[in-house]
Amino acid sequence: MSHLNKPYLITRSLSPENQETPIHFLEHFTPTPPDYFYIRNHFNYPPLKEDNYILSIKGEVGSVSTFHINDLIHFPLRTVKNVLECAGNKRSFFSPKTYGEQWEAGAISQGAWTGISLNNMLKITGIRSSAKEVVFEAHDNGKEKNKQNLPYCRSLPLSKALHEDTIVALFYNGTPIPYKQGAPLRLIVPHWYGMASVKWLKSITLINHSFQGPYQTEDYVYYPNKYNDENASFVTSMNVNTIIQKPLDYSTSSKGTHCISGIAWTGLGRIKNVYISTDDGQSWNKATLHQALSKYAFVPWSYVWEVNDTGEYTILCKGEDTAGRIQPDKAYWNRKGYGYNAVYKVKVKIE
Amino acid sequence: MSHLNKPYLITRSLSPENQETPIHFLEHFTPTPPDYFYIRNHFNYPPLKEDNYILSIKGEVGSVSTFHINDLIHFPLRTVKNVLECAGNKRSFFSPKTYGEQWEAGAISQGAWTGISLNNMLKITGIRSSAKEVVFEAHDNGKEKNKQNLPYCRSLPLSKALHEDTIVALFYNGTPIPYKQGAPLRLIVPHWYGMASVKWLKSITLINHSFQGPYQTEDYVYYPNKYNDENASFVTSMNVNTIIQKPLDYSTSSKGTHCISGIAWTGLGRIKNVYISTDDGQSWNKATLHQALSKYAFVPWSYVWEVNDTGEYTILCKGEDTAGRIQPDKAYWNRKGYGYNAVYKVKVKIE
Repeated sequence: MSHLNKPYLITRSLSPENQETPIHFLEHFTPTPPDYFYIRNHFNYPPLKEDNYILSIKGEVGSVSTFHINDLIHFPLRTVKNVLECAGNKRSFFSPKTYGEQWEAGAISQGAWTGISLNNMLKITGIRSSAKEVVFEAHDNGKEKNKQNLPYCRSLPLSKALHEDTIVALFYNGTPIPYKQGAPLRLIVPHWYGMASVKWLKSITLINHSFQGPYQTEDYVYYPNKYNDENASFVTSMNVNTIIQKPLDYSTSSKGTHCISGIAWTGLGRIKNVYISTDDGQSWNKATLHQALSKYAFVPWSYVWEVNDTGEYTILCKGEDTAGRIQPDKAYWNRKGYGYNAVYKVKVKIE
Repeated sequence: MSHLNKPYLITRSLSPENQETPIHFLEHFTPTPPDYFYIRNHFNYPPLKEDNYILSIKGEVGSVSTFHINDLIHFPLRTVKNVLECAGNKRSFFSPKTYGEQWEAGAISQGAWTGISLNNMLKITGIRSSAKEVVFEAHDNGKEKNKQNLPYCRSLPLSKALHEDTIVALFYNGTPIPYKQGAPLRLIVPHWYGMASVKWLKSITLINHSFQGPYQTEDYVYYPNKYNDENASFVTSMNVNTIIQKPLDYSTSSKGTHCISGIAWTGLGRIKNVYISTDDGQSWNKATLHQALSKYAFVPWSYVWEVNDTGEYTILCKGEDTAGRIQPDKAYWNRKGYGYNAVYKVKVKIE
């Protein structure tokens, strides 16, 4: 008799739907299975209409164009395998705590997205020299906090929009994108936090100024002060980050040889090193890095730990990327709780 | 197009399987659906064999007897609708933290169990006057922490074993018990923490002394000291307890009328009152109690909150039972992290 024990998404809210991937209980050598991909919404799901299969590109372009999905699939297709992480991932770990979805470490997944380089589409429409940013409007919309009804809308600087790996995706892991993940068309922006990878993509508009909108200039902004907006800065690329998957926090175990394992990721360059301490930071050793799915993907790592004495142990883990960034002892506190990436810590008791 | 948003079990470990019910996202006026019932195991699942359908009763009885499930279904059936709560529920809320499964508030569910009063079965076997405790052995077994291979085994004092609502259950919510919940035969002990409701019940033995066993006299014991076992006491009935289901902790909302809601339960008597504070304990008001499934079940409650000013609010909730117990401001700390029942707290920000 077989009793498959499987993990599930972790519910943070149902309306709108926000659910974490069970990050500690999955292997991360392959794309996250669709049923385990984290779900993050500002609004209830938009209805799927005929219009959703058409994408318009307008604004500071040579010629305003519309593309039907049936045209798009004849473009050269590009597959990008990347981590998508909610900017609020690990928010619940901030001290003092911050308001918003109380994500633990699972507002993150990795996938293989296939679509068309936006770059290639803009070669067809042309780009006026006045173009400065590219605005992506989504089909989902609603009211938040007594504001007026607005669609989800974000911009990218032209340089990031033109990167060959910024794609309009049609497929996830080789099949049409699941509806909850933004079907039929989703923007994918590797290295940036997930708010940039606009789901249910409706239109693309090139503009000659800086885009203003609640999801660009109010949310997804680092505010270092609790009571004012001074020294604010935009949330863009992912911070260097890790988790320990095994052992679990506050678990018990016995003396002997243990394999400490986890994943690392970054939004700038690539993961260069993962350091492990089994003595609460007194000494550090390098973990073994394993083959990742791609240059944008999770880097699985492991470390063999021999433990001969009973007692309590604090295991720490920190990643370093090729941009020279290393996880800090304490995360950069900000009022809306974005970008948490302090050294990851688990406590275990050897009995 | 319909997009059903549903919650899932929350995985704490997969081998053995330990998963929480998504307690905040379910209605609790009815039994917990089988797929949402919390799962708590010490070991991997035992194999299902022909033997599992037979229950033996032995020891200090008039006549040693065995009962096949096909006999048992002809006994008078009794349905008990009760809360089952893991003694470690809310363990992760202790400060200082304690080791073990890091349950949040979902190691608890309620169900309608149907079976035979143990009392009725013991009328058939007879009880010798020397009998003092009743030992329940399960089919699941294994090694924990380098100990020898042992089955899960627990005892009840004779008086509790003879209570008419202590039953050997065959059915859950009207259908055979799900395998992961202890099929084909599970002991159900209302009012006691879940460790007493032995799954995959194998045998019942009446003994003339106090039972000793790791799940009786080592685990499921309150140890108030970190480094010694002084002043230890056994874990038995559930503490008076509550949760706030809505609003969620560290959520944001707007001014106006809100319905604060949740559940209360106890292992002694019944829930008498639920008190709510929306000003961090300066003032308290009674919540409205709603119809419960039974005297052993969750008591759903609600409280209407008018909020006219923006700002941060701390909402507290505490239950009181007919035994005169009321949730304390601070939980009784114990080394293994059992019985957490401090006043429940959520913070919300009105924007």
